[in-house]
Amino acid sequence: MREDKKTIIVFSNDMDKVMAAFVIATGAAAMGDEVTMFFTFWGLNVLRDAKKKAQGKSFLEKMFGAMMPKGVEKLPLSKMNFLGIGPKLMKYMMKKKNVMMLPEMIKQAQELGIKMVACSMSMDVMGIKKEELIDGVEIGGVATYLGEASEAGVNLFI
Amino acid sequence: MREDKKTIIVFSNDMDKVMAAFVIATGAAAMGDEVTMFFTFWGLNVLRDAKKKAQGKSFLEKMFGAMMPKGVEKLPLSKMNFLGIGPKLMKYMMKKKNVMMLPEMIKQAQELGIKMVACSMSMDVMGIKKEELIDGVEIGGVATYLGEASEAGVNLFI
Amino acid sequence: MREDKKTIIVFSNDMDKVMAAFVIATGAAAMGDEVTMFFTFWGLNVLRDAKKKAQGKSFLEKMFGAMMPKGVEKLPLSKMNFLGIGPKLMKYMMKKKNVMMLPEMIKQAQELGIKMVACSMSMDVMGIKKEELIDGVEIGGVATYLGEASEAGVNLFI
Repeated sequence: MREDKKTIIVFSNDMDKVMAAFVIATGAAAMGDEVTMFFTFWGLNVLRDAKKKAQGKSFLEKMFGAMMPKGVEKLPLSKMNFLGIGPKLMKYMMKKKNVMMLPEMIKQAQELGIKMVACSMSMDVMGIKKEELIDGVEIGGVATYLGEASEAGVNLFI
Repeated sequence: MREDKKTIIVFSNDMDKVMAAFVIATGAAAMGDEVTMFFTFWGLNVLRDAKKKAQGKSFLEKMFGAMMPKGVEKLPLSKMNFLGIGPKLMKYMMKKKNVMMLPEMIKQAQELGIKMVACSMSMDVMGIKKEELIDGVEIGGVATYLGEASEAGVNLFI
Repeated sequence: MREDKKTIIVFSNDMDKVMAAFVIATGAAAMGDEVTMFFTFWGLNVLRDAKKKAQGKSFLEKMFGAMMPKGVEKLPLSKMNFLGIGPKLMKYMMKKKNVMMLPEMIKQAQELGIKMVACSMSMDVMGIKKEELIDGVEIGGVATYLGEASEAGVNLFI
């Protein structure tokens, strides 16, 4: 087991939880750790590229996709969302305090070499295709996750 | 500490989170790991047997029990539940993609020898009795959990 | 890595989740483990002292603070909150079963030497000041957390 290896499962698509995940992940990577983030279920929405579209979706898959937040700019808050006012307020307060925003955090995560893996089973169930995701994302299953997590000293489920 | 040992606390009774817990648990057990799942608070509802009843409950305990989902077929989604339409839709999409359903996952977990522990303190507070739970479940407290987790390399709270 | 060291991130301010965090933390500390609890985002509300006030807050910070639960007595339930009836019912059932209440658990945590750290970045974004927090709390950032977690055998995100 390695103290300098960490994994995070991003299950949620709540802006606040996703931010916590990226703060921990980029913090660790900046300190030299090897970090893998595994995006599953609602967490997949973080990786959806707002400008990309996929062909050949069924009606249900399209409907499901339309009801979920498409990309990192659209994420709700887990509490005090108030139909989207909460996230705007939070972003405003973050900007005032010079805290890095999520889109920049994700860019930084990729520059720091953080491995971002999209869960293949969730993609299949929710009808999300690889061509809808942001660049630089790998696809993997539970075996991928378990392989990484078994080696890592810190494993979080967010 | 052992790389081949894992524990998962199932705190939530959301269908999606419980599924994530069982996908990880059965995946690890199938690869030869020793896995303990610890069900606490709302997670206890996963272990309630819809066909079993307990005697000697107080009025409050009965009321509490009636308001919570009884068993694995009744679990809500953490997001987009839409009064129960969400879980049905999710199950439909899972069936179409040949993904294993929760009841089968639980059966598989037991066949793979995953240890399933119900939290004694939560049972006491919520008034859930052993005779209401599915077969093969052990009862344990926080010391049981800590003993297992201290030895395990991967410990998740879901 | 040390089997006798544990960290818990308390991200949520739901009474049920916070209780789970303190049951695990105090259980581990009572068995001789070194435990660090890291309070971030909504979890900061657990550490707010209902009787303390801070000067020099902006309008937005005051508003944000007023909308969040101030202190451990005001926490909602993650499920079945019913406008505050759920938490009261839960407390009633806990008292009947002689389960320790949250305020006592926190006191016990401090007596057992559990290190309680408030996340500096979240405090900054949400406008929560040190003088509003209960006594005995340290302030720290993600590096503090990562330093502790890398050494610990059990790391949970709650």
